[in-house]
Amino acid sequence: MKMLPDVQYELRPGVIEFRWGHPDLALLPTTSMAQAAARALTQGGIAALSYGAEQGPGTLIAQVCAWLGRHEGTAPAAEQVYITAGVSQALDLLCTLWTQPRDIALVESPVYHLALRIFRDHGLDLRPVAADEQGVIPDALAAALADLHRQGRQPRFFYTVPTFGNPTAAVLPLGRRQAIAALAQKADLLILEDDVYRRLWYDAPPPPPLAALAPANVVRLGSFSKVLAPGLRLGWLVAPAEIVRRCAGAGLNDSGGGVSHFTAHVVAAFMELGWLDPHIEELRAVYRQRRDALLAALAAELPPGCRCQTPAGGFFAWVRLPEGCDSAALLPAAEAAGLSYVPGARFFADGSGARYLRLAFSLLAPEELAEGARRLGRVLS
Amino acid sequence: MKMLPDVQYELRPGVIEFRWGHPDLALLPTTSMAQAAARALTQGGIAALSYGAEQGPGTLIAQVCAWLGRHEGTAPAAEQVYITAGVSQALDLLCTLWTQPRDIALVESPVYHLALRIFRDHGLDLRPVAADEQGVIPDALAAALADLHRQGRQPRFFYTVPTFGNPTAAVLPLGRRQAIAALAQKADLLILEDDVYRRLWYDAPPPPPLAALAPANVVRLGSFSKVLAPGLRLGWLVAPAEIVRRCAGAGLNDSGGGVSHFTAHVVAAFMELGWLDPHIEELRAVYRQRRDALLAALAAELPPGCRCQTPAGGFFAWVRLPEGCDSAALLPAAEAAGLSYVPGARFFADGSGARYLRLAFSLLAPEELAEGARRLGRVLS
Repeated sequence: MKMLPDVQYELRPGVIEFRWGHPDLALLPTTSMAQAAARALTQGGIAALSYGAEQGPGTLIAQVCAWLGRHEGTAPAAEQVYITAGVSQALDLLCTLWTQPRDIALVESPVYHLALRIFRDHGLDLRPVAADEQGVIPDALAAALADLHRQGRQPRFFYTVPTFGNPTAAVLPLGRRQAIAALAQKADLLILEDDVYRRLWYDAPPPPPLAALAPANVVRLGSFSKVLAPGLRLGWLVAPAEIVRRCAGAGLNDSGGGVSHFTAHVVAAFMELGWLDPHIEELRAVYRQRRDALLAALAAELPPGCRCQTPAGGFFAWVRLPEGCDSAALLPAAEAAGLSYVPGARFFADGSGARYLRLAFSLLAPEELAEGARRLGRVLS
Repeated sequence: MKMLPDVQYELRPGVIEFRWGHPDLALLPTTSMAQAAARALTQGGIAALSYGAEQGPGTLIAQVCAWLGRHEGTAPAAEQVYITAGVSQALDLLCTLWTQPRDIALVESPVYHLALRIFRDHGLDLRPVAADEQGVIPDALAAALADLHRQGRQPRFFYTVPTFGNPTAAVLPLGRRQAIAALAQKADLLILEDDVYRRLWYDAPPPPPLAALAPANVVRLGSFSKVLAPGLRLGWLVAPAEIVRRCAGAGLNDSGGGVSHFTAHVVAAFMELGWLDPHIEELRAVYRQRRDALLAALAAELPPGCRCQTPAGGFFAWVRLPEGCDSAALLPAAEAAGLSYVPGARFFADGSGARYLRLAFSLLAPEELAEGARRLGRVLS
């Protein structure tokens, strides 16, 4: 019988794969995770294998609250946290419970392209809100809201990745965060804040999340994918208690408990052992070095007219090509030259962005990053 | 800070809890699962922690195919299997991809009540199809289809639990299976066959699944919840390859891989070690004894006019009370007398079924089952 693959990525010999925004495979904590699993299954008794609490296991909720409190000064209440199978599952559930096909949703543009696929599976009508190299533009959000208001329409939510965003790595400055928060409060707008890269900062900690500025309007989505292991399919959301209650009360959870119950116990044990923060420190050191290696090589190798802002955190470098270039049209030549990337147009709800391309530096060693930049420079020249 | 619960069930001192259709907690394989996790994380290398293949990990798909082939004579092709986070998540995804709010779905009645909650979260218009003590009645399905056909409507699917069904434990006889399969083929009807109790038979193996009789029309839903551990939140579906492709291709999986990737690797290791079938043998011996203890006690203790068919498999005994009784109205008196159950009306999409109640025997020791039956007899007398 044919054996299907276990993993999502495909690594082609001879190709430097800038496509995959995945954690460094060598840093996946296999041994310590096995110890955490043993602890969860022996010390936790039968809880890890029983039908789970709908909101997620209390042990992991307590760990997440304490961890957020330690890093951000304020811990959410346990009633404000819902354990998810990652941001994708959280977005899917929020769409099921809060939207109907043909509802309008506002989405930062460019933004994480695979979130758009989930929204489209739910039949949503996506309206882009322009972002620049500092993130989403408050005036663009205000204009989109005013425009819909004139039509008597209310968007179901606004989706944004304001901190080391995918794909641009932009960090929304505090002033813009305050403006967005004020707009949301005034327009009774629900914001879905995708905040999975926050702890992976390389120069200075980022400004507070939108959730801290407009707590009644924001569902903040966190994940263990970037800071621990994506295969866990585990995350959390922090939201007003009534939103958490509605998520926990979904038929999906009533019939079986939280969707990642066993894994949640394993990760709770990992956190109890005190292993999460040292692991993140190690990731930050490695990824900072990779970021620096890629940026230095891009500065040396890219032809005039290209531009790449230094990513202050996260996994991605966002490259603007000279006017008139089309990164999708260029991709076959790039692959023939031994590198890959994701064309910029994928990240724009309206299909614009042909001038841009996304390079993920998380998965590649410094020497591969340097060689990849050289190859990209040659292709562009 | 308040600590929230880890698990879904609530066990009240002094109350014999017939409510919870959960596996025996003492038989949850904590130690062997820890060994399987260690194996998955060390021998499997980094695959268990990486972003997973959208269809589910190939290693688990291969195990599931081989296991089904061993027990049923025919193994599905790898392309026909999609790994789920259990039946609930599978139903949720199928609704997202195949339905719109106000679409019509046919549901066996009575049927697993929490599936109905998932369908309602998706705004479906549920139409009951009557079942008796042998399961769904083919003429009732034919009538429902003809009725909709006259209105120019097509149901999106028909949901049924034909084998040791929840709540009735009925086994649909082969003749009815053939009739249902023929109706589905004729009407181009998609059947969602919830088949999670099949391996837990106590007298004789059940007839083949509907999926074997009308493979192009059936999505068959399996689960590790009943035969291994519900907290894993892991299952599979077998379906025509184009349905599997559409499930795997959902935005939900594109953005992160299969929803239970890590757990899937742990269970694949458990199966590789050859531990699943001996575990199921043990469960069957324990549950058969419990079924016998409960049925004997009910026969001795229930007043005349009550009736309970012997469940040939699964977790449940379905009791019909004398004409005019209302099991929901009776519940407070039962709880005061130290037992609980689920009132029958919960399982009927149209709210009928007041005469029935469901007793789960999987979680309770034989002496508790006997004492519970005595208490029920006293309450009913």
